Amino acid sequence: MPVTPETVGSVGEFPLIERITSGLAMGPAVSVGPGDDAAVFLVNGSAVTSVDVLVEGVHFRRDWVPAERLGRRAVAVSCSDLEAMGAHQVAVLVGLSVPGDLEASWVADLARGIRAECEAAGASLVGGDVTRSRDVTLAMTVVGELRGRPPVLRSGARPGDVVAVRGRLGWAAGGLQVLKRGFRSPRALVEAYQCPVVTYGAGAEAALAGATAMVDVSDGLLADLGHLASASEVAVDLDSGRFDIPDPVRAVAAATGGDPLTYVLTGGEDHALAATFPFGRVPPEWLVVGKVADGQGVTVDGEEWAGPKGWDHFAR
Amino acid sequence: MPVTPETVGSVGEFPLIERITSGLAMGPAVSVGPGDDAAVFLVNGSAVTSVDVLVEGVHFRRDWVPAERLGRRAVAVSCSDLEAMGAHQVAVLVGLSVPGDLEASWVADLARGIRAECEAAGASLVGGDVTRSRDVTLAMTVVGELRGRPPVLRSGARPGDVVAVRGRLGWAAGGLQVLKRGFRSPRALVEAYQCPVVTYGAGAEAALAGATAMVDVSDGLLADLGHLASASEVAVDLDSGRFDIPDPVRAVAAATGGDPLTYVLTGGEDHALAATFPFGRVPPEWLVVGKVADGQGVTVDGEEWAGPKGWDHFAR
Repeated sequence: MPVTPETVGSVGEFPLIERITSGLAMGPAVSVGPGDDAAVFLVNGSAVTSVDVLVEGVHFRRDWVPAERLGRRAVAVSCSDLEAMGAHQVAVLVGLSVPGDLEASWVADLARGIRAECEAAGASLVGGDVTRSRDVTLAMTVVGELRGRPPVLRSGARPGDVVAVRGRLGWAAGGLQVLKRGFRSPRALVEAYQCPVVTYGAGAEAALAGATAMVDVSDGLLADLGHLASASEVAVDLDSGRFDIPDPVRAVAAATGGDPLTYVLTGGEDHALAATFPFGRVPPEWLVVGKVADGQGVTVDGEEWAGPKGWDHFAR
Repeated sequence: MPVTPETVGSVGEFPLIERITSGLAMGPAVSVGPGDDAAVFLVNGSAVTSVDVLVEGVHFRRDWVPAERLGRRAVAVSCSDLEAMGAHQVAVLVGLSVPGDLEASWVADLARGIRAECEAAGASLVGGDVTRSRDVTLAMTVVGELRGRPPVLRSGARPGDVVAVRGRLGWAAGGLQVLKRGFRSPRALVEAYQCPVVTYGAGAEAALAGATAMVDVSDGLLADLGHLASASEVAVDLDSGRFDIPDPVRAVAAATGGDPLTYVLTGGEDHALAATFPFGRVPPEWLVVGKVADGQGVTVDGEEWAGPKGWDHFAR
């Protein structure tokens, strides 16, 4: 007789929450973790908060992203927003909706990924809500702190500043193309699509170095710099020769007849940071890719970019 | 030629967000509202946070709950968790997932409800995420503050304390029975089901009066007091004669052949507060309904309650 896998429906709501939260370690700022009506923790300086929602069939397919990597991604994309303010992560809350017939082991794997990425981000998983739904949906909220510093906004870029990026560009878009064609390699791109690599602390580092504006690249570099340019009422011009085109992105572009630079400039979901700095203030790990001038909009080598600049969740 | 209603898909992600957030007033604690990577605000004392997820087809049906009342409900149920800690609401974030073919006016109505309930709660709508999904899903996160007071936990009830409630019990469950049978009245019950009436400030009032433990009644009074009793390692006994049975609940029970007390003791989603107080410390607006003793579990008039005590989101 085949063994029926245990489902979230057969486990039940409260035992499922118990499994997700049992043995969870809390950071020193947290006085009340999961299990009460709400979580309690200390925030040093102003609080910073953001929420990101990932929906099955829209942001991911379960056969393309293993549960543990999805858990990591969900935490990473929310924390990336706090990095872009120059903030430090303190607490994460998960709003998880899953079908009743989903295997309980899938949720256990997801929880392991959530916990691992929280640890990497220096945040405590302090609470959440688990409910039933047709499609797996993850709403991740992160609350962080500024430790007395002002936030780095999108609106502070000034003519004369330089534009710099830190992190990967084009990797996740390359990975998505690979998966869409039914392949699983280059493995590095597929893994980049499954979960971005967020360099925790890079946002605070940029803030300390004097970044005048910052944004996290979720929709695509041109699209997100467009938001920054618009908020700052400046023009941004990128120098295409400054970008490293990673070998696996070059390989995928060649195999699909695409332009590798398009992946780098318009691919979303890598969650790199893009920031503007006064000349001479760019931290060593950042790559200078352009400059800020009077005007508006984003250009590449002085020209308008032909084609889409990024991602609209309702347009596709 | 019929006019095609505007849909969220035809409006697009960023214009939709713009419509939700335009003209939004921010409280004095908020320095960065919607429009940047994250929101920034001050928290007085420890931060308190909770998330609640509402899923179409699980927690609501769109034909049973108008969009504006759904928006109010989503904010109210999250804020109710903070009330149960004795906290004050400061900031709300909305994670909204909607089908692309949903009418844009529905989202506008929802946003109006969210904004109205935030105002009632004294909270600012500081940010969110809007994405596509098959079913409407709302993940509401609220961040609040304790203003120097300790939180009221579930675990502080002591033998000799009295148990008191503030708010409605049985109304939402009655309203759900009405709607399930295809009726729309008693109107007061239907409206109670559509959106709970949260008495903002009642949680802080209980904390100041010396409440030893508190919980918000989302699953049903017996179920939620069960969590409190378990966390406090005490027994709770309720005196059934102390409860007011509201006339509309009595009417629905009579019409459906049900027991009105069952609605009051096990009906969820009214988001009343239940708390324990040292004898003589109960604030005037609270109704004393029982007492705390050595032991474990929740009894009614000294007896075990036969039948279900509340709601499990995966069991039904």
